[in-house]
This record gives sequence, structure tokens and C-alpha cells, in this order.
Amino acid sequence: MNDVDNVEVLIERLRVGDFENLEKIPDVEIAYLLPDLSDAQQDRLLISLDKERRAEILSEADDSVQKSIIDRFETAQVAEMIGELAPDDGADILEALPDKESREVLNQMDSASSKEMEELLHHDPESAGGLMTPDCILLNAEYTAEEAIHAARDALDAEMVAYVYIVDSQGRLEGVVSLRHLLMANPSALLSDIIVRDVVSVHLDDHKSSVAELAMKYHYVALPVVDEENRFKGIVTVDDIMDVMEEEASEDIFRLAGTESGSPTLESVMSRVKKRLPYLLVTLVGGGMAALILRQFKNEIEALVMLSYFIPVVIGMAGNVGVQCSTVVVRGLATGEIIPSRFSKVFVHEVKVGLSLSFVFCLLSSLIVYFIEPSIAITVGIGMASGIIMASTVGTAVPLFCEKMDFDPALAAGPFVTTTNDMLGVLVYLQVAKWLI
Amino acid sequence: MNDVDNVEVLIERLRVGDFENLEKIPDVEIAYLLPDLSDAQQDRLLISLDKERRAEILSEADDSVQKSIIDRFETAQVAEMIGELAPDDGADILEALPDKESREVLNQMDSASSKEMEELLHHDPESAGGLMTPDCILLNAEYTAEEAIHAARDALDAEMVAYVYIVDSQGRLEGVVSLRHLLMANPSALLSDIIVRDVVSVHLDDHKSSVAELAMKYHYVALPVVDEENRFKGIVTVDDIMDVMEEEASEDIFRLAGTESGSPTLESVMSRVKKRLPYLLVTLVGGGMAALILRQFKNEIEALVMLSYFIPVVIGMAGNVGVQCSTVVVRGLATGEIIPSRFSKVFVHEVKVGLSLSFVFCLLSSLIVYFIEPSIAITVGIGMASGIIMASTVGTAVPLFCEKMDFDPALAAGPFVTTTNDMLGVLVYLQVAKWLI
Repeated sequence: MNDVDNVEVLIERLRVGDFENLEKIPDVEIAYLLPDLSDAQQDRLLISLDKERRAEILSEADDSVQKSIIDRFETAQVAEMIGELAPDDGADILEALPDKESREVLNQMDSASSKEMEELLHHDPESAGGLMTPDCILLNAEYTAEEAIHAARDALDAEMVAYVYIVDSQGRLEGVVSLRHLLMANPSALLSDIIVRDVVSVHLDDHKSSVAELAMKYHYVALPVVDEENRFKGIVTVDDIMDVMEEEASEDIFRLAGTESGSPTLESVMSRVKKRLPYLLVTLVGGGMAALILRQFKNEIEALVMLSYFIPVVIGMAGNVGVQCSTVVVRGLATGEIIPSRFSKVFVHEVKVGLSLSFVFCLLSSLIVYFIEPSIAITVGIGMASGIIMASTVGTAVPLFCEKMDFDPALAAGPFVTTTNDMLGVLVYLQVAKWLI
Repeated sequence: MNDVDNVEVLIERLRVGDFENLEKIPDVEIAYLLPDLSDAQQDRLLISLDKERRAEILSEADDSVQKSIIDRFETAQVAEMIGELAPDDGADILEALPDKESREVLNQMDSASSKEMEELLHHDPESAGGLMTPDCILLNAEYTAEEAIHAARDALDAEMVAYVYIVDSQGRLEGVVSLRHLLMANPSALLSDIIVRDVVSVHLDDHKSSVAELAMKYHYVALPVVDEENRFKGIVTVDDIMDVMEEEASEDIFRLAGTESGSPTLESVMSRVKKRLPYLLVTLVGGGMAALILRQFKNEIEALVMLSYFIPVVIGMAGNVGVQCSTVVVRGLATGEIIPSRFSKVFVHEVKVGLSLSFVFCLLSSLIVYFIEPSIAITVGIGMASGIIMASTVGTAVPLFCEKMDFDPALAAGPFVTTTNDMLGVLVYLQVAKWLI
């Protein structure tokens, strides 16, 4: 077990500048603790390390920490650090910098690294092209197994040596051979005889979420990336795929809760406030409309104030049923459980769930209300049931519709579904009450 | 690109029993489409395939589909299928069966497979022991690099050949050598000379979420599993780690939304209803209490009915601010962004976010209310601000406290935080109104 045993002690050591035996602590552990150090403490620590380690720690650090370190160091020092990294990791850091700054850093880097990173920077960071690394073992089919093993051994830069990719003279992907099959093959066998031609690849422009979905589905540790003419461009490795999976899950979770953020607890209070405002503004406007709806029922409420007691429970139930439906749909779309051919089935089944719940809670809420204000027990029960049916319909339909329209369902499901259900819940409840009383 | 291009066409083909060229469709694609076939169609398809493929498809299928297939097939057929699988995959399926059934299946399996699977079944499926596979390359340090390469080549059963693990005579883990380093080493070099001794391992009882977190942090494609005496027991491979990451993210997302489910849209309506009931019951009880609180303010509402118009917006804002805070904390705890030493910092910062938001929305809501019912604009504004401050405090504190108490923060954050904030929101709003008017 190499995980750091006592984090508090390590933080304290780093704070006071006790860097003894630091070589035993993995880079990633140090990177994770940077937010607990002041800027000056971070700088003292980084300067005490050799440039290779400094680069790796920078690369593993959280975006906001990364940005602040780069701002504090000289361009030449930044170029030196980034130049030490694998091209895809270096490009990830440069991507986040303003264009002018990233250009300055590239200019001060040695030309081989800067050329590779520059090429990666042309791709959308959200695409397979933005995730890939060009460093891998690329051979043609006339190599023998033995030659291929030698090539794998000598490919010191390659990030992933478990596979050798085979391309034709135009650089088009022909297939793949695993290192294991190379070892098992007759040393003089040609790659063309042991190649697997049916290879799952992704396109440069494919969104990173679909790259992760594919890797996950097929349990691959690397996926080759090709252009529109099937020319091999690089590979996306499993470490990046795990990062994407975590990012995509976070994005959905945060959007469903109505905030946008990468690592919210490491950001400034102001930036957090800004990211939560839009959702809350939608809530405020929706709440304002709910107030207008309630005002329409002024006479009913004045005649029967107790109707207002149950506004919170009706809204709460409708809201939560709606959130359950939309969350199930959003997550199902993300994991690939819900494919377009299943949309109508999903919709029908979720509405059936809503109907069953409305029946259960019509009875239960009537019972509870009976002990509080018996005269309106049935009214509240039926009003709540109507609210639940409506909420499950809206909660299921909105994310499915957004997916069809190519609009992020998580983004819609959070604010719009909740606010719509709040307003409609009040309206349905009071309308039902008006009819029944 | 090997992903299935036209899913609809493939489903139709499978439905009508056109199984031509099915060997070109990957197992996992077929497994994913099983829910779109009737039981009879599934059976016809599975019987048409050889036993190896049938086993792989069963293993890739969703839990509910898996269960229904096993129920329909004879025990002998099930034993034959599961016997084809890697021990960890076989054990995963057996784990889900009732004890008696799983015993019957094991009895009909050949003894080598059944013994391995039985051993895995002793471990908690949520632990490293429940995830691991024993199939890997295990050598002692006196092997030469060349001998180790031969061993890797001949280890046909091994799931992961990228690493060779080195154990001492008592089976204790000494270190690891990558296949790549074996290839680069002098063929006659002893493993003891090229071994990496500082190896990150997990314990049999470690929870799968911490295994995934570790793999993710260190970007490892396999983690060795040891017992309390550091004896090597198996490895957890990256494919299982990706599954765990997806499951853990789903679990958090669903719990935050107040439902428990693996693949909700593939389950029966009844099972979905059952899983959502507990959360909704909490909401109902909380709503009942909110009604009791409102009744305490009967006189105030009767005197000023317009106070009731703004109950939805106050609850909505408090609820959503609370959800934002608790979601940020729950996700931060899951990704390792929030470690215990940061608890108080996270709390203080989130409450600052709440204070800033309360200031913004005190102004904005007063403005909006001014256009609806000017006489209570300030009252609503101050009531809402108080509700927001309280909600951000509760929303941040509850999941942090649960984590400290070793209780799942996601489970608490969903139902309890929302319901508490609904009740407190109403109380604070009306209390403020009572003071001000």
C-alpha cells in the first residue's frame, strides 16, 4: 500500500518546507495536496523538485491550481515543465491557457515537443482528437513478430505498448496486434498473418463521451483514432478514458443540481456563486409565476385558508417525482441504457410509474390530511395525484425530447423540469380544489 | 468502426430469427439489445450460438435480463455457460442468484472452475475480493526475464498480461514487473534485479469505490489484491474498475434524486415504484409537517392572504440552493476532492456562497414581488434570504456530517436535506413575515 497514510502530517511537512524523503511520495499525492498549501509554499515545494517531477505534478494538479502556478512562473520555466510531459498531457494544459500565452510557451519549447502539442491543440478538447496521444507503436504489415517486439521494446516514448497498430503505406489503419499475441506467435510470422482487422476505432471529431462509452462497452484499454479517410492519428488510452468518465458523471450530477463546475470546492466563492445563479434565476422567475397563479385563486384561498397549508407538500411531491423521472432518463441516456429505439417504451413505463405513485399517494396524503384538516382530505389527495401524474409526464418527456433535439438533457432536466413542475403543481392542485369545493 | 450502425435493423433481424452473419456483431452489442427481444426471441437467439458466445453474452447482459435467462434455462445449461467464463465474471453472475440455486449450478460445473468461483463468492461483492480475478501471472524473484516472458506467453488464462507479479515462498507480494520492462531487460537478468517493490495494492476487504478511486488516481490498469498478511490473492483489472466507476456514479446520481436502482429503465414498473417510495414518503411526512407549521401562522395568512402566494418561490429557492450545496459536497467526497482535512474549509466557503446568494436574491425577489404585491416586497425578500442562508448551511453540513459518521452522504443528501429545507424554509419565511408586519 503506497497511498499516503497520514495526509495531515504530510500537509504540515509540505507547509513548513520539510521535503525530506519526498521521492517516496507519488507525484499524484503531492498534486492532490497543493490546494492545501499557500502560493508561496507551493512555489517552494515545486522549486525543490527536479523539472521532470515538477512537470508531472503540474499535470496532475487541479485546473485552478494549474492555472495559478502557470501565472506565477516565468514563461521559460513553464515551457520547460510542459516540454517534459507527454504530448497529450502538455496539450491539455496549453489548451486551458489564453491563446497568446500558449503561443509564447510553445515558442520557448524545443521544436519536436512543440510541434506535436501544436497539432493536438487544433482539435476540440471535447473530441477524440483532443484526448489522443500520437505516441504509440505503428508498423506496417510486412514486419515479423520478432521485429515488432523489438520495435515495442525500443518505443520508449509510447504511452501504451500493449498493442501494436498496423497501417498501410497511406497511413490508413489496417488492424491491431496485441503484444501478447506477438509473444505467442512464431518469431518469423508476418504481422499480416496475425493481425486483427476488425478493429474498433473512433473518429477525430467524435465526442469524448462517446469515446468513453465505447471503451467502457468493449472493455478496451486503448482506442485508435482515425480521420475521415481512416488514416491513423493516435490513440486514446484508458487513463484519459477514466478521466472522461469521471468528468462526464460530474457534469451530469452538477447540471441536474443546477450548477456548472469542474471542481467546485476548489474554486473561489465568486466563481461558485456565478455558476449557480442561472438555475436560481430560473427558479425565481418560475416562483414569481407560481405567485401569479396563486393570486388567481385569491377567492378560494381567502374562503379556505387551509388550502394554502398543503401547497408545500403538493409542490414537494410533484417536484420530487419529476426529478426522479428525469434523473432516471438522464442517467439512462448517459450510460447507453436508453437508446432511441426505446424512447417510447421508456416514456410509457415511466408514466405508468407516475400513475402508480399517484394512486399510492392519493390515498396516503388523504389519510395524513385527514388528521390535520379533515374537510379537505379528499381534495388534497386528488390534487396531489394530479400533480404527480403531470410531473412524471413532464419529467420523462423533457429530457427525452432534448436528447432528440440534440440539447443536453441534464441541463434541461435540472432547472426547467423542477420549475415547470412547481408551477404546474400549484395550478393543478388549486384547480382541482376549485372544482371539488 | 465496428459499432453497430443500424440498431433498428439489427433488432428487427434478431426478432424474426435472421441470425446470418451474426459472428460479425460483437457479443456486447447483442447483449445490449436483449431487452428489446421477447423471452422466446432471446432463447431462440442464444440457442443458435455456440456455448462460448452464449456465455459471454450472458455475462455482458443487464442484471435483470441475466436473471430472467437463468430462470428459463436448465441448471445444466446454466452451469455450462457460467463454466465458460473467467472466474470473476462467473462469480458475478452466481453472486446474484439465491444461495441454493448458485450451489446447484456450481455442483454441475467442472471442479476447477467451480473451485475458483466458489472462493471468489466468499468475498463481499462490494469489496476488492469480490471484484478480483485470480488469473494472472505469478512468479518468484529467481526467474530470469526470459523465463518470465515465456511464462507470460504460456499463461493462456491470464486476463492481464501487462504485468507479472512477484511473490515470495509464502505467497507474499514482493513487487511487480511490467511486460515491457521484461522485454527491455537483459534476457538473463533476474526478476529480483528489475522488480518494482513499491507497489500500490489493495486489501481484500477494501470497498470497490476506494479501489476505483486508487486506480483512477494512479492511472493503473490493474491493482493487486492482498490479504492482511500481504499474501497475493488476485488482481482487479481496469474493465471491472470502469464498471465500478459507472455504478458508483449512477448510485450517487440516483440517491441524490431519491431512488435506488441499477438499470431503472430495464426494470419492471412495480420494482421502480418500490424503489422510489421511501424518498417520497419522507417528502410526504415533511410536507405534512410543513402544513402543521403553516397552520401555526393561520392568523397571519388570514390577515394577509398574499403571504401564501410566495410560499412556492421561497421553498423552491431554499430547496434548490440546498441541493446545489449538498450535490457539490457529495460529488466532491466521491471524487476525492474533499478530504477530511478540508471539511471545515468546504463548510465555510459553501456558507459564504449561500450568504452571497441570499444577498443577490433578497434584492431580486423584493424587486419581482414589488410588481406583484408591493406591500410585502421587503418581507418576502428578507424571508427568502433567511431561507437561503439556512438551506446552504443544512445542505453543506448534512452530507459532511454523514461522511464523518460513515453514513452514505448521497443517501442523506437527497431526501433529508430537501425535506428539511422545505420545512425550515416555510418556517423561516413566515416567522420573518410575522416579525416584520
